Amino acid sequence: MTQRPHTLGVAVIGTGKMGADHVRRVQEVTSGARVTAVVDVDAERAKAVAARVDGCTAHTDPAAAMAAADVDAVIVASPGPAHEAALLAAFEHDLPVLCEKPLTPDAAAALRVMEAEQKLGHRRVQVGFMRRYDAEYMKLKSLLETGQLGRPLMLHNRHRNVASPPGWTSEMLINDSVTHEMDVTRWLLGHEITSVTVLTPTPSGNAPDGIRDPQFVLFETDGGAIVDVEIYVNCGFGYQVQAEVVCERGTARVGDGHAMVTNAAGRWGGIIAQDYIERFADAYDREVQAWVDATRRGEITGPSAWDGYAVAAVCEAGVRALEEGGRVAVDLVDRPTLYQD
Amino acid sequence: MTQRPHTLGVAVIGTGKMGADHVRRVQEVTSGARVTAVVDVDAERAKAVAARVDGCTAHTDPAAAMAAADVDAVIVASPGPAHEAALLAAFEHDLPVLCEKPLTPDAAAALRVMEAEQKLGHRRVQVGFMRRYDAEYMKLKSLLETGQLGRPLMLHNRHRNVASPPGWTSEMLINDSVTHEMDVTRWLLGHEITSVTVLTPTPSGNAPDGIRDPQFVLFETDGGAIVDVEIYVNCGFGYQVQAEVVCERGTARVGDGHAMVTNAAGRWGGIIAQDYIERFADAYDREVQAWVDATRRGEITGPSAWDGYAVAAVCEAGVRALEEGGRVAVDLVDRPTLYQD
Amino acid sequence: MTQRPHTLGVAVIGTGKMGADHVRRVQEVTSGARVTAVVDVDAERAKAVAARVDGCTAHTDPAAAMAAADVDAVIVASPGPAHEAALLAAFEHDLPVLCEKPLTPDAAAALRVMEAEQKLGHRRVQVGFMRRYDAEYMKLKSLLETGQLGRPLMLHNRHRNVASPPGWTSEMLINDSVTHEMDVTRWLLGHEITSVTVLTPTPSGNAPDGIRDPQFVLFETDGGAIVDVEIYVNCGFGYQVQAEVVCERGTARVGDGHAMVTNAAGRWGGIIAQDYIERFADAYDREVQAWVDATRRGEITGPSAWDGYAVAAVCEAGVRALEEGGRVAVDLVDRPTLYQD
Amino acid sequence: MTQRPHTLGVAVIGTGKMGADHVRRVQEVTSGARVTAVVDVDAERAKAVAARVDGCTAHTDPAAAMAAADVDAVIVASPGPAHEAALLAAFEHDLPVLCEKPLTPDAAAALRVMEAEQKLGHRRVQVGFMRRYDAEYMKLKSLLETGQLGRPLMLHNRHRNVASPPGWTSEMLINDSVTHEMDVTRWLLGHEITSVTVLTPTPSGNAPDGIRDPQFVLFETDGGAIVDVEIYVNCGFGYQVQAEVVCERGTARVGDGHAMVTNAAGRWGGIIAQDYIERFADAYDREVQAWVDATRRGEITGPSAWDGYAVAAVCEAGVRALEEGGRVAVDLVDRPTLYQD
Repeated sequence: MTQRPHTLGVAVIGTGKMGADHVRRVQEVTSGARVTAVVDVDAERAKAVAARVDGCTAHTDPAAAMAAADVDAVIVASPGPAHEAALLAAFEHDLPVLCEKPLTPDAAAALRVMEAEQKLGHRRVQVGFMRRYDAEYMKLKSLLETGQLGRPLMLHNRHRNVASPPGWTSEMLINDSVTHEMDVTRWLLGHEITSVTVLTPTPSGNAPDGIRDPQFVLFETDGGAIVDVEIYVNCGFGYQVQAEVVCERGTARVGDGHAMVTNAAGRWGGIIAQDYIERFADAYDREVQAWVDATRRGEITGPSAWDGYAVAAVCEAGVRALEEGGRVAVDLVDRPTLYQD
Repeated sequence: MTQRPHTLGVAVIGTGKMGADHVRRVQEVTSGARVTAVVDVDAERAKAVAARVDGCTAHTDPAAAMAAADVDAVIVASPGPAHEAALLAAFEHDLPVLCEKPLTPDAAAALRVMEAEQKLGHRRVQVGFMRRYDAEYMKLKSLLETGQLGRPLMLHNRHRNVASPPGWTSEMLINDSVTHEMDVTRWLLGHEITSVTVLTPTPSGNAPDGIRDPQFVLFETDGGAIVDVEIYVNCGFGYQVQAEVVCERGTARVGDGHAMVTNAAGRWGGIIAQDYIERFADAYDREVQAWVDATRRGEITGPSAWDGYAVAAVCEAGVRALEEGGRVAVDLVDRPTLYQD
Repeated sequence: MTQRPHTLGVAVIGTGKMGADHVRRVQEVTSGARVTAVVDVDAERAKAVAARVDGCTAHTDPAAAMAAADVDAVIVASPGPAHEAALLAAFEHDLPVLCEKPLTPDAAAALRVMEAEQKLGHRRVQVGFMRRYDAEYMKLKSLLETGQLGRPLMLHNRHRNVASPPGWTSEMLINDSVTHEMDVTRWLLGHEITSVTVLTPTPSGNAPDGIRDPQFVLFETDGGAIVDVEIYVNCGFGYQVQAEVVCERGTARVGDGHAMVTNAAGRWGGIIAQDYIERFADAYDREVQAWVDATRRGEITGPSAWDGYAVAAVCEAGVRALEEGGRVAVDLVDRPTLYQD
Repeated sequence: MTQRPHTLGVAVIGTGKMGADHVRRVQEVTSGARVTAVVDVDAERAKAVAARVDGCTAHTDPAAAMAAADVDAVIVASPGPAHEAALLAAFEHDLPVLCEKPLTPDAAAALRVMEAEQKLGHRRVQVGFMRRYDAEYMKLKSLLETGQLGRPLMLHNRHRNVASPPGWTSEMLINDSVTHEMDVTRWLLGHEITSVTVLTPTPSGNAPDGIRDPQFVLFETDGGAIVDVEIYVNCGFGYQVQAEVVCERGTARVGDGHAMVTNAAGRWGGIIAQDYIERFADAYDREVQAWVDATRRGEITGPSAWDGYAVAAVCEAGVRALEEGGRVAVDLVDRPTLYQD
């Protein structure tokens, strides 16, 4: 299990906001991979990013990067229209690809990608629908899979952004935002979407001129479910993504400041962890990563021996208080200079 | 920033439950480190763990492991009484150490560790108080540091476990459980604890014979705050850790199924993320790690090109529905064999 | 303000479940009114109800009841098809009427009622849309009226019942259940509904044969809002009514186990009362009503002088504890027989 | 059940803020009672209050009011030091009394009241501990009485006020505020309090000079429970009263913006109503009271026949939409002048 194959060399295609963030992620957060090549049509930008990463080369042509010996896998984070070419190049080198959404800007191009992948005879592409990796959505999916709430009948979604970027159009609410709910619908319910209806209320005063925002989008599915999506990209108050699945015997909701909340069997509410590993798993991971990061920088940043000592002294007072009753004073030595900060 | 120093070689002392979990964590979750040595008084157990890790040696003596050329840092996860010796050995090799709590079983030993560290002249020890790395506690700490709620006056804690392990004693509620709240108190408030009082209600029927469970523990601090801890290690219903800080102008609470909730300025509630990066940062990290892990195993596990295609087709129908009004059917090609699962 | 006109004499038409409940309500809960006549086509049932109310007469003809000298106002709680005749009779006596929903079973009859009321020249009818009097909906309405969230754009409703009664049809989900959301839409938004669309997923396994349950109902309004209603009358898990209004600058939601929750200005949450009268107004009302009810029955039921004494004794100990520090014992006399229960 | 004895004539002693509010409550909110006499040492104030109530006399001497033929019962809302005399006078007339808290300012006076009541041979006094009538506390009490969570072990209370009135002292946090928690403790747990401890953190910057605010108060009980109370009367942000009972198998909490929340059996959350009567009982009561009040003023204020008509028309469109599919327009006649507002 912990026998690791060699570290994965990753080429990142596109070094804009999302691509640069993936470079950082692979280098600093991800175990078992490193960035060995970056690609951008802007050669200067590619070079600047590569210069910050040990042993990373810069390219303007995806195919050149993919031909490098130390490239084992590809992340495509270039603009949507460039995806098809990058994917086909990756197929030529038979490299696995994580491709940011959308796979392609239209269905026809996606069909061509699928045909090429089928010719390879095995899957090489993972699309970047990252909601499937969100802890809350994962819990919702797990709950649905247990079947304890029965079959899903409806799915209510809310998708709100503070403000749309310049140049946003009414169509982009569908193409850029609701695409997430399209994937969520298909993944959570395991249904294909068979029809779409879009209703538009009088636009919000927050919406830029000419933009129909918010919109109310309805899906029907081949599993007989009804799905609604409120998409409101200029709500002003925050970024909020919520989903409630209505099943035969109960509902489950994620995204409103709680952990997952269910309505079932006469009760609303959530699940309490059963042990500290479930509750604090992330804290342990973060602790060790923080310690490794600081150590590699030559620093010590976390709780010190002084903290360990002070707690030991309080424990001794606590046990005496338990045994003897009443209030027990804690005696600490003076704090040594080394532990003053 | 992304210019990484060489990968950190870590020796893990103690390969019991916690030690083995740290081996897994360093190998599979942590970026920039790998386990190069493991140590256990049980030579067979050490060998078994080392066998699963590429390039990892097994030892029974911490000092031998620390002398190895590829050991840059140490994690101490052996039983508490063995910590002092391991820490002093690490100091001899001037190695940074992440030492599981407790630093030592008593204050006198902790003082000796501190003296040795002071002789080194620089800090080498981080104690494993991992609540400081929990996302909710970190938010609580950040909020306190802004000062917007004023000075902290009281801190209410709840600490509940499903059931105590065999052999648990009344003193262990203080020494093993409330130690976390001791550290949390000192860290969150920045105060030292000056006295302890312990009150014990009639024990719960759930408590094993002779165990005073629950207990109600009170701290006074040198910053003039009052801290209370409900510790109940046989509550039966779940593992629950909650903290509410009462400040001059408001309170903030973590741990009860919500994200952090504040009471302030006439309102209770929480914070809404302002963008998708804030909301879904963990999902992106998990997505890339999952893709790297699968790729290294030679697999593809996430959303496929078919998923990308299906969403593109729904988008096209959605944009037509927006433009033309009414219900627009979605047309999909038959699902190719490659994408059936 | 507290100068009360004479007590209102009320005739209740219909003494089935709802009518009998209104008799109880007027007699026992309502200030300033009493039931002076009841009417039912079933003479025995009318007599049985009247016999339990001091000075109440029984009738089979609404008009006869309305002619009685001590009838000042009418509550219509008979079956829907009988409403029109009862309302017209009340208009002849120019009596104010509280008429249970529906006003009439169809729009044509409602038009006739309106014409008759217009001939009177003043309003006499209040329709029993009681959600307008629910504390949560009232708060939601008040919030919308402040305008602080901007103009309403969408309204999401959930309406769930445990199980439908025998004889329920698919149409009754619209006619009996969603009628409440029709009124809520018109009242909360101040819009008229201009179109209706109904979508039906594959029926739930909980739904009786042939009943399309749940349904998803959409309204468009003359104010440009989109309204959706999930109606699910065999959800099995409880009775749940929720509404979320999406406005330009925030949303507000009632009905999910919280007091009203808003999303606005980067925060989700609710309002904290500002004083004990706001928080405990209902408790004071309930306290005095309980005391009056018990007193009229010749009983004393609430906290006794013993309770007053015991609290006074604890106060004295508390003040000493505050002044002197430490733990102060409370001394109580033995509990007298009179106060043992 | 609905056979009402004659309307209760109530004398209200003390016409300050609380007394005047009780006059309003008895007259306008309470069924079956009316104010027949008011008493105040300030004759002008008594007369002014009496003048607003039909058939109400004004007095300066409680005994004179109690001697009146139309006085059946007494509410004591005068300052605490005047309670004993008023109670003894009521005992002479053998009248039932609702006495605002505190029963008396000290335990010795309370003992004298109890002795006098015992001489009467039956209970006449109810003390105004109104939290026992709060809907949330009532639910908490009911839950405890089911025994399903096991025996109560601890009770955590929070009691926060926006600001203390002028003249407030450190002792009044105990005597005026924490008295509620003393009663709540005794009533919820059914225990007597056996000791009190008070801890005071460094006072809040919000506290007036010299006032120790907040305070942390501890009770031990004869049932072996530990009770803690945070009392903070200058918190600035709102009025907040919370209670969490920790029982052997779970906890239950009221007062933080939710309905009652329990932690038990691996889940946190609340109860969903099972029918509309449970959910909307208050709305029905409020609806009928509002209709009676308006009618007695000669007004009609609620939903009109137009509202009834509009809903009937939407229903007809809705049923067609269900039967025929698609979007069905709603046709309304023009709104008649009578229904425009």
